[in-house]
Amino acid sequence: MVKIAVMGYGVVGSGVVEVLTNHSENIARRAKEEISIKYILDLRDFPGSPFGSKFTKSFETILNDPEVKIVVEVMGGLHPSFEYVKACLEAGKSVVTSNKELVAAKGAELLKIAQKNNLNFLFEASVGGGIPIIRPISQCLAANDVVEIAGILNGTTNFILTKMIREQMTFEDALALAQKLGYAERNPAADIEGSDACRKICILASLAYGKHVYPEQVHTEGITKIALADVEYAAAWGGVVKLIGQVRALENGKLQIIVCPMFIPRESQLATVDDVFNGIMVRGDSTGDVVFYGKGAGKLPTASAVVADVIDCVKHFKARKYLYWEDGSEDYVEDYRLNVISMYVRAKTEDEAVALKNVKQIFGEVTRLSRKNAENGEFAFVTNSMKEEEILTKLEKLKSMGICVENTIRIGNL
Amino acid sequence: MVKIAVMGYGVVGSGVVEVLTNHSENIARRAKEEISIKYILDLRDFPGSPFGSKFTKSFETILNDPEVKIVVEVMGGLHPSFEYVKACLEAGKSVVTSNKELVAAKGAELLKIAQKNNLNFLFEASVGGGIPIIRPISQCLAANDVVEIAGILNGTTNFILTKMIREQMTFEDALALAQKLGYAERNPAADIEGSDACRKICILASLAYGKHVYPEQVHTEGITKIALADVEYAAAWGGVVKLIGQVRALENGKLQIIVCPMFIPRESQLATVDDVFNGIMVRGDSTGDVVFYGKGAGKLPTASAVVADVIDCVKHFKARKYLYWEDGSEDYVEDYRLNVISMYVRAKTEDEAVALKNVKQIFGEVTRLSRKNAENGEFAFVTNSMKEEEILTKLEKLKSMGICVENTIRIGNL
Repeated sequence: MVKIAVMGYGVVGSGVVEVLTNHSENIARRAKEEISIKYILDLRDFPGSPFGSKFTKSFETILNDPEVKIVVEVMGGLHPSFEYVKACLEAGKSVVTSNKELVAAKGAELLKIAQKNNLNFLFEASVGGGIPIIRPISQCLAANDVVEIAGILNGTTNFILTKMIREQMTFEDALALAQKLGYAERNPAADIEGSDACRKICILASLAYGKHVYPEQVHTEGITKIALADVEYAAAWGGVVKLIGQVRALENGKLQIIVCPMFIPRESQLATVDDVFNGIMVRGDSTGDVVFYGKGAGKLPTASAVVADVIDCVKHFKARKYLYWEDGSEDYVEDYRLNVISMYVRAKTEDEAVALKNVKQIFGEVTRLSRKNAENGEFAFVTNSMKEEEILTKLEKLKSMGICVENTIRIGNL
Repeated sequence: MVKIAVMGYGVVGSGVVEVLTNHSENIARRAKEEISIKYILDLRDFPGSPFGSKFTKSFETILNDPEVKIVVEVMGGLHPSFEYVKACLEAGKSVVTSNKELVAAKGAELLKIAQKNNLNFLFEASVGGGIPIIRPISQCLAANDVVEIAGILNGTTNFILTKMIREQMTFEDALALAQKLGYAERNPAADIEGSDACRKICILASLAYGKHVYPEQVHTEGITKIALADVEYAAAWGGVVKLIGQVRALENGKLQIIVCPMFIPRESQLATVDDVFNGIMVRGDSTGDVVFYGKGAGKLPTASAVVADVIDCVKHFKARKYLYWEDGSEDYVEDYRLNVISMYVRAKTEDEAVALKNVKQIFGEVTRLSRKNAENGEFAFVTNSMKEEEILTKLEKLKSMGICVENTIRIGNL
């Protein structure tokens, strides 16, 4: 019998308790030991809960109980999660977490403590919810060099974009609907401004390339500037707008990594990842493209990933799982303005003929896009491939000619 | 340093040697030990091969060498693979295989020997090539009851169907092209008649539900009867024709399992799995639908899955991986005619008005389908849901009325 503690009884925490309870027999068979919840840490009261006797408000009770071998951290946020997890690892307890903010900020540090103490620190649920992705990258793809990872990593923004694409909802209406349905929080900033997706691509990049990438190193743009006009131009171009997290290893040893909306061609396997679903493409030099698809969030999917990690902990008390990356460094991420891309540009002018002449003079040949409901003086085009900094300079020049650049979106090179 | 032997130096075998050689440093880091190939078993000669000194034609040399701890079986076929693998396991060597025929026919027996001797018998590459699927099902989904698995499990037939759907090629032309491109063998029977897909769904079903399903228990239909007319009617219906392997647990403890072409709605995540790609949907009670997508065959994808298993063997010499299912039983699979489905029917008649009256009289309301190039007297419809045996009886009645039923395809209930 292995005793564990669950820290946090919110959506995921209560899901973990539910899955452990409902599947206890199956889980015991897989883990080869019974798993029993000794404590549930939460500052709130849950009168009438069948788990009443397990609740505690004292972290120290858990920390100081030598019977507790595994601690599940599903509180979220960076503090006090970090301090608690660190203390648990230092006290000889393995830790399982779903907390992407924690792993993205402190992964290398916590993995180091786990390694030193011969413990496991597992976080399958931190990316992709119930989609197995951490394990496949770390294990199955061990015989590959990872060429690239690109994914739709945030279900909330994908839901909003899907509503804009399929039902011509505005961003504001789609966000309001997402909030009504419980897909978006009242403060949706972390989702719609891209920082949730950023944390996840940081975790995947750190794992795949062995060195920590910190969220603040990654150029991140959300979807708040996407208008219906952009969605329509994407369709005219032959694709859809998706919020993509993408990372590639460069030959100079640095990473090319970015989170931003992109035009994705309709034929791409990621283009059909709709609604709250996530899709993650891992390109290996041997396997080619492998795509993982499923619900990237939600109580039970996330909880089942947490429980799978708990089972793995139980099975690997002696043989530690290989999961490790080293500290990051300041110059590890290439300036995104050095990436070679092509860019969609939506602009407005008073004199279209002159504007187009200017565009041609500045950018050379471009691909014009059109849409049915274009406003007066509106025009859109896609540039050829060049360094982003070059595009930015050219756009400044365009603006100086009195052309109003209303939005730009990168063309996904997946 | 761990010494291994590779039995079979065909496409996959040479890929395994290539991956082990090219990624040796990375692999040693993951496995925490160097992995060295001591023998390559093949009856052919490979003059000039850089691995010349490792080749042997004698299985006994491998079997009797106590230094060889892991044997990779990539010869294919049932004999002598089965005898060799069994002997290796009995001699205390772990075995990794990509041989789906072997696992589908003898999995339970070989897993039992492996368990008895505390060895690993791993076969990630037997399903989905380089797509991680065995491990995710056995590990990540440990906290789930698997409700259903459905997948496009054979790349060759999926390539043929894609050519028929996208380029209006006939089955014969598409098959010839697949052979020319090396996607189909000169004798393509195992692919186009569905037995390859059948072996794979048997392996997944055995793993997910813990009890062996033998290929001969599974009703299997290939794609040889699919005509362009059917592809066009599928489009009119709102979907595509795909060769699907599907398994579900029934409440009576039996399995509902089948391999056959199905109409799949365009919105399904499996509908966009095209060309030689495979896509496998695993529906868990907690995770919901998780889909795995990638190249289901090919030298390097398959080899990299084999090598990942070898690494896992090295890491788990002491702690055996949990991978096990028990022997099957005769009545474990439900008669497919008891499944409730709806059916697409394409027929011909000399008097359409009378025929349609008869269809209505026999089947009740049906959904008529139409296509541009319909031949004279041709008509097609989709029945309501009912037991398949009921549909079959009704079709016999239809035939007795002089209506020529040219093809039937099940509507995928995914």
